Amino acid sequence: MVCTERTPRVAAARQLARRAGRTRAGRFLAEGAQAVREALRWAAEGRGTVHELFFTAPAAERNPELLDAARAAGVPLSEITERAAAGLSETVTPQGVVAVCDTVDVSVEQALAGRPKLVAVLVGVADPGNAGTVSRVADAAGADAVLFAGDTVDPHNGKCVRASTGSLFHLPIARERDLTAVLDACRAAGLRLVAADGYAEHDLDTAAVRGTLDEPTAWLFGSEAHGVPQEVLDTADESLRVPIYGGAESLNLATAAAVCLYASARAQRVRS
Amino acid sequence: MVCTERTPRVAAARQLARRAGRTRAGRFLAEGAQAVREALRWAAEGRGTVHELFFTAPAAERNPELLDAARAAGVPLSEITERAAAGLSETVTPQGVVAVCDTVDVSVEQALAGRPKLVAVLVGVADPGNAGTVSRVADAAGADAVLFAGDTVDPHNGKCVRASTGSLFHLPIARERDLTAVLDACRAAGLRLVAADGYAEHDLDTAAVRGTLDEPTAWLFGSEAHGVPQEVLDTADESLRVPIYGGAESLNLATAAAVCLYASARAQRVRS
Repeated sequence: MVCTERTPRVAAARQLARRAGRTRAGRFLAEGAQAVREALRWAAEGRGTVHELFFTAPAAERNPELLDAARAAGVPLSEITERAAAGLSETVTPQGVVAVCDTVDVSVEQALAGRPKLVAVLVGVADPGNAGTVSRVADAAGADAVLFAGDTVDPHNGKCVRASTGSLFHLPIARERDLTAVLDACRAAGLRLVAADGYAEHDLDTAAVRGTLDEPTAWLFGSEAHGVPQEVLDTADESLRVPIYGGAESLNLATAAAVCLYASARAQRVRS
Repeated sequence: MVCTERTPRVAAARQLARRAGRTRAGRFLAEGAQAVREALRWAAEGRGTVHELFFTAPAAERNPELLDAARAAGVPLSEITERAAAGLSETVTPQGVVAVCDTVDVSVEQALAGRPKLVAVLVGVADPGNAGTVSRVADAAGADAVLFAGDTVDPHNGKCVRASTGSLFHLPIARERDLTAVLDACRAAGLRLVAADGYAEHDLDTAAVRGTLDEPTAWLFGSEAHGVPQEVLDTADESLRVPIYGGAESLNLATAAAVCLYASARAQRVRS
């Protein structure tokens, strides 16, 4: 029996496409083959639960191994119509396979447990695609955690999940509206607070700066429109910009974060 | 008199929203305040011509200095309706100010004149947003040129222009469908051909590799779906991957290009 958008379990899952529904249920939707694969791996490691899996017939044909893995893990499977799949998707091209998962976030303290060396802090980043892409970059650079601080988008937003390409399931994610509490926790964990700021006096390649990049660091990234707020710049240990050697005014958030996080990752590995 | 989408000069400009129309006219549309500002600067430097400027009343109110600059440069100005502006835009949120410009591209030989040290080569990159963002990153990293090679998107595509945030006007851009000719020209210009390849044996941080990054380099970037084609990898001097220190499978094209281009830019500056 194929479920439609009116089938109660599909209608219930659809609530998770909105933040309020996710908060109420403590669950979210991981859409697409890659996200579902990472979710099943995350559940297999005992880090959370995949509660059910919805799939369309064409998606099942494209990803038989995913359905087998879900079945083997005891995850209830339901075939859904294309229209039901569209209702569970926040993208214009629904991928036809969606897992209902426990939300992934942990407390800031848990995220920072165990002597972190490299952490990415999103400060008021409202764009879900940017937040997801920075999470992916942080994961690639070997960061120990990503903290969604202040008025930052919900990491479980569908576009954020998609842009993270599974990284939300790889490394600890925390969210905390109280920005001061996040910064204090980073300091208590022994991290230097370094703000990425296009107007900073020093850049990443400044000789004196290069010597500090190998220290345990929490990189603070603001929104594209507003950057890191002034009061945060005032309290950070340092502000650095990516050097602009050509005519561009700036980099976008994700590419700037990539250069910053890899500069630290490289410095930490070369020194160690 | 406000022009509508049926006014002949608006209808003519609308042809430039398609590749065939751009090729026929040798002109393209630079949309948005930032692109128009850079286009006027580019024209002031004698590098090309801005033929006319279309604006809506609200856009004129938001950017009076742009209209003044265009007027001072002798660029014909026409007020248009919101609907006409939408017809000239390839984005869902038309910005209401659009310049008709000469296409910016030069020959590969011109782009590589004058001992280039750092060049970005797009090999079969079909996504205009990615191509534009890589152009912006290359500009920021101080690259000497960006070459759109093989089956790569037209640099004058509206989404590419937008993602480049003006960088297309900053550094030499060339396009050439004959990929072999592009690679030969790079070699003739004294550039090492280094392909960015997620499956390469060596990564950017490999000690032996770090010593070569300061040499004059043409970085080859492929599409997200297919990467750099195998026959190009076979002919390149080297293939390198961005090291993945965490759980992510890969980086997206723009963030990978940022890490690669900045690694070269840094190495070239530290050594010199």
